[in-house]
Amino acid sequence: FHGDARGLAVVHDLLVSLEEVFSGCTKHIKISRSRLNPDGRSVRSEDKVLDVVVKKGWRAGTKITFPCEGDETPNNTPADVTFVLRDKKHTQYKRDGSNIVYTAKITLKEALCGCTVNVPTLDNRMMPLPSSDIIKPGSIRRLRGEGLPLPKSPVQRGDLVVEFQVLFPDRIPPQSREIIKHSLAKC
Amino acid sequence: FHGDARGLAVVHDLLVSLEEVFSGCTKHIKISRSRLNPDGRSVRSEDKVLDVVVKKGWRAGTKITFPCEGDETPNNTPADVTFVLRDKKHTQYKRDGSNIVYTAKITLKEALCGCTVNVPTLDNRMMPLPSSDIIKPGSIRRLRGEGLPLPKSPVQRGDLVVEFQVLFPDRIPPQSREIIKHSLAKC
Repeated sequence: FHGDARGLAVVHDLLVSLEEVFSGCTKHIKISRSRLNPDGRSVRSEDKVLDVVVKKGWRAGTKITFPCEGDETPNNTPADVTFVLRDKKHTQYKRDGSNIVYTAKITLKEALCGCTVNVPTLDNRMMPLPSSDIIKPGSIRRLRGEGLPLPKSPVQRGDLVVEFQVLFPDRIPPQSREIIKHSLAKC
Repeated sequence: FHGDARGLAVVHDLLVSLEEVFSGCTKHIKISRSRLNPDGRSVRSEDKVLDVVVKKGWRAGTKITFPCEGDETPNNTPADVTFVLRDKKHTQYKRDGSNIVYTAKITLKEALCGCTVNVPTLDNRMMPLPSSDIIKPGSIRRLRGEGLPLPKSPVQRGDLVVEFQVLFPDRIPPQSREIIKHSLAKC
């Protein structure tokens, strides 16, 4: 240890999936860093596996720091290695804090005449969400407690927010169109 | 002038409406600054009107600087006064660079059975925009050249983008609902 100069701080992004945030996980990350040889002047490169614990519900931006795991040189004491959580893109949900947002695509007929949407949950169930009312484009319904664990109180969970997207037909035959026109005349 | 220290830079936001950006304008802004008296030690407060020229199509963030119009003191030479353009919120349009976006609210019947939307322009005309096709929620149509002047070539103009929002009825009588269901069965 030659003075109190420290090496450059090492910061890595750590991508986690929503499933990993849901259950919590430990990621084994191999890092490569230099260590001083006994002669105090030359350095060797060394691999080390760090066990990064990601707790339930942790948010993007959360930092996990391993003290003094950075490069060591004759002039520097090793810096800390820090991992910063980032959310991996999910095929089905968008994350919104402790809520997750699912876009349910329904047809115009389903939106107007009622339907049951099957909503996939984070733990691989299908929750039927029946609706007999008209579903307006962009409207939402909440499945309370089906979101991610709250980081500060992981027994509680956020919501699964279902946002409806209404798919219109490309074309309606002229005859049907006239009928619809009359049916909607007083609406 | 007692050394090359300069007073604190003075920066003001300058709100401009889309109409002002459309035509270009000159804003007369009264500022108050201190000036050194002939004794070289005492200062007086002075009002001055600056003519801020805003050219056609200029964007938010554009800076207009008046050199040395800031406070003068025995120890400081006056700093520059800078105005930074900000877009005033408009009741009808959102700005998107040199385009302006207008949200046209149409009923479900209009979306499915055709309609003509009257689109207000920046120069106070009404442009009829007829449609016989189905209009999907969130779809857009462009009125080319009806947007704002391009800042670097103000004879050219951006587009007026019409974005459709489809308003669904709150309720459809059960009988009409059945008819619509059958009419949309093959769509």
